[in-house]
Amino acid sequence: MAKIVAKFGGTSVADVARIERAADKIKREVDLGHKVAVVVSAMSGVTNALIEHCSDIYSLYDASEYDSVVSSGEQVTAGLMAIALQKRGISARSWLGWQVPIICSELHGRARILEIDPTELNKRLDDNEVAVLAGFQGITHAGRIATLGRGGSDTTAVALAAALGADRCDIYTDVEGVFTTDPRIVPAASKLNAISYEEMLEMASSGAKVLQTRSVEMAFKREVPVQVLSSFGDKIGSELPGTMVVKEDETMEEHVVNGITYSRDDAKITLLNLKDIPGVAAKVFGPLSEANVNVDMIVQDISTDGKLTDMTFTVPRSDVNRAKEALSKADDLKGAKIVSSTDVAKISVVGIGMRSHAGVAQQMFAALADKGINIQVISTSEIKISVLIAEEYTELAVRTLHSVYGLENIA
Amino acid sequence: MAKIVAKFGGTSVADVARIERAADKIKREVDLGHKVAVVVSAMSGVTNALIEHCSDIYSLYDASEYDSVVSSGEQVTAGLMAIALQKRGISARSWLGWQVPIICSELHGRARILEIDPTELNKRLDDNEVAVLAGFQGITHAGRIATLGRGGSDTTAVALAAALGADRCDIYTDVEGVFTTDPRIVPAASKLNAISYEEMLEMASSGAKVLQTRSVEMAFKREVPVQVLSSFGDKIGSELPGTMVVKEDETMEEHVVNGITYSRDDAKITLLNLKDIPGVAAKVFGPLSEANVNVDMIVQDISTDGKLTDMTFTVPRSDVNRAKEALSKADDLKGAKIVSSTDVAKISVVGIGMRSHAGVAQQMFAALADKGINIQVISTSEIKISVLIAEEYTELAVRTLHSVYGLENIA
Repeated sequence: MAKIVAKFGGTSVADVARIERAADKIKREVDLGHKVAVVVSAMSGVTNALIEHCSDIYSLYDASEYDSVVSSGEQVTAGLMAIALQKRGISARSWLGWQVPIICSELHGRARILEIDPTELNKRLDDNEVAVLAGFQGITHAGRIATLGRGGSDTTAVALAAALGADRCDIYTDVEGVFTTDPRIVPAASKLNAISYEEMLEMASSGAKVLQTRSVEMAFKREVPVQVLSSFGDKIGSELPGTMVVKEDETMEEHVVNGITYSRDDAKITLLNLKDIPGVAAKVFGPLSEANVNVDMIVQDISTDGKLTDMTFTVPRSDVNRAKEALSKADDLKGAKIVSSTDVAKISVVGIGMRSHAGVAQQMFAALADKGINIQVISTSEIKISVLIAEEYTELAVRTLHSVYGLENIA
Repeated sequence: MAKIVAKFGGTSVADVARIERAADKIKREVDLGHKVAVVVSAMSGVTNALIEHCSDIYSLYDASEYDSVVSSGEQVTAGLMAIALQKRGISARSWLGWQVPIICSELHGRARILEIDPTELNKRLDDNEVAVLAGFQGITHAGRIATLGRGGSDTTAVALAAALGADRCDIYTDVEGVFTTDPRIVPAASKLNAISYEEMLEMASSGAKVLQTRSVEMAFKREVPVQVLSSFGDKIGSELPGTMVVKEDETMEEHVVNGITYSRDDAKITLLNLKDIPGVAAKVFGPLSEANVNVDMIVQDISTDGKLTDMTFTVPRSDVNRAKEALSKADDLKGAKIVSSTDVAKISVVGIGMRSHAGVAQQMFAALADKGINIQVISTSEIKISVLIAEEYTELAVRTLHSVYGLENIA
C-alpha cells in the first residue's frame, strides 16, 4: 500500500468527460489500497480566458487581483473532481490553497511555495479520504491568493508529495513519458523508463517541455520519485507505464547520452571591439543583470593584439531588445559595436554517462560538421553539452545527434 | 460624505465592457467624496454553466463541493472589478467571503450569514480604499466556502451595509426601480420613488422579482435604506434615481395600494370528503410539513351536514406531486379525494394604506367579478390581499386592478 500524489494537467481535465476518466483512474488506485492525493489544473482554456479578461480591462493589472481571478480555474476543477470521485463511492473533498494551507511567498504571479502543513491531509488520507487539491495556488502571509506561474501545478504536486512523505508523484499529462527527443522531429524517439533528476533538470532547462524546471528542482532537493505518464491510455500510475524521474543510482539503464533537446527561445548578441581589459565581463553583464536579463551561453574571443576583443552570448529571445538597450546605454561599453541575431537554435546533448565517458563532445562536433552545420557558441556542464547553430538546421541537427548516440528504440 | 454599499447584479457585470461601465459609476461616487464598498455577482451565465458542470457529473452532487465550484464566479468578477477601479486611479482590492470573513451557517447551497467582521474593511474605507466583495458567498466555521442561494448577492450587500453602518445600499440591476406592477403587462406601470420594507417584503414574496425576500427581511430588521436602481442609464446611486426601500414613516407618498403582483408558481390542491372533526387541519398539514412542502393559501368549506368537509390550499407548483404523494399515504386521510390543478395564478394587491382604508378588498373582488374572473381562494395579511384565479386571466386581472387602484403614472 503506497501513498501517491496524482497530478492531472489541463488537457487531462479538459472537460467534464475527461474529469470523469481521470476519476476512474484514481478509483483504480484507491481500489488497489493506495492512499491518494490528487492535484488538478484548470480545465483547458480556462486560465487563458481569465488572463485575457484581466488584460482586456487593464494591461497593467494588479498581480494580486490577477492571482485571485486566475486561481478560480483550479478551484472549479478541484470541486468537480471531488464530486466525480464521490459519484464513484470514494470519500473525497477538495482543498484550495488557503484551506490546506499552502503558504507562498508574496511574489504574485510567480510565487514560491514556502510551507505546506500536511497534518490534516495526512489524517484524512489515513481515514481513506482522497484529498483533491487545486494546483497552482497558495496563500501569502498577508492572506491573499498567490499563483505559482505557468506549470505551477507540477510544483504543487511535487511539493505536496514531499510534505506528505508520499512514495511517488504521478504527473498525468498528454505524453507517455520523457522521450530521448521530440517525437515530432524523430518518430523513432524512445520513451525512457527512468531518468535521473540531474538529467531531467538539464533537459527541462534546455527545451524539453514535459516538466517545469522548478518542479524538477524541488523533486531533486526533496528526493521525490516523480513519474511522467499519459492520462489518455488505460494504464494507471501504479502500473509504472511512464518515465520515472529518480535519484541517479536508481536509474537502471546505462546510456552515455539520454536525451537530445532543442530550444528556439534564444537570441545571440555579439559585442565587437571591446577593450580587452580586466573586468570587461563585469562591465557587459552588470547592465544586463540590472535590466533583469538572464545570460546563458558565453564565449569570449582571445584577443590577438591584447587591446580589443569580441564577446558573444545568448539571452532569451523575448528580452533581446531590452538587452541591447541596456548595453547601448552603458558608459563603459562606448565604442563597442552591438550585433544581434534571433536566427539561432540551441541544441543540447544530455547524459549522466558523460561524466565517465570521454569523447561525447568530440562525437557531437564531428557529426554536426559532417552535415555542414556551423557551431556558433558552445557551453557545457558536467552532464550536458549545448551548441548554438543557425535555426534552419534545428531538425537536421536533432535527427543527426539522436542517431549518432544510438537513441532509437532503446527502451 | 456618505458610506455606500453598491451591488451590481449579473447583467450589470455581464462582460468586461459592463464591468468597466460599473467601475465608471463607482468612480463618480468616489469623486463625490463617498466611501464605497462594492458587491458583485458572477458574470451573466457563469453560475449556470458551473451548476451544469456539477449536475453533468453527478446529479446528487455534494453541496459543499458545489459551493466551492459556483462561488468561483463571483471571485472572478471581484478581481476584475478591482482591476477596473485601479485602472481609473482608485485604490481598490477584492475580498472573498473567507477573507473578510463573512461567517455563514453550514447549510451549503442556501447558507445564512451569521456574522461579518467590519473592522478591517472600515479601516480601509477610511483610508479611501474601495472594497470589492464577492457576493453570494461566505465561510463556515468548518472552513468551507458556503453560498447563500439564488439572489444571495443582494443579501451579501444588505448584510455588509448593516455591518459597516452604511448610509445606503444601492442595488444596481436591469430595471429602474420597483414598479407598481410588471411593466411588461402594464406599460403605464409607475416607478415608485419609495416603498416601505413591509410592502417590499409582501411584494417580493408574492411574485415581484426585483429583490430577494431574504435581503428585504434583513434590510427591514437592520433598518438599512436600500435603493433599487438601473445600471444601464447614466445615473448613479447618489442621484437617487431609483426606488428607496425604507421605514414606513420615511415613505412620503401616500397611496392606499402601492403594487399589484402576480405569481404563476403555485398549484392548488383540494381534499374532498374530509371527515369534519376537530384536528382535521393538523392531519392534512402534518404530512405536508414532514414532506417539507410549504402551504400558502388555505380555505376550508363550512360543512353543511356536520360530517364531511372540503379543504383547498396552495403549494409551490414544483412540489405538487410530492404533496399529493404525502397526502395519499396519510392514514388519517383515507376516504378523502385529492384533486389538484396547476392552472392557477395568484394575484396580490399590496399597500400599507389598507390598514387605515376600508373597502380595498371589496373593490378588488368587485373589479374581478366585473370582468367575469372567478376567485378560487382568498388570503389576506394586514397590508396584502391575494386571490387565486385561473391562470389564463393573469394579465387581465393585473391590468384591471392596476387601473382600479389608479396606479398609472403616479410617481
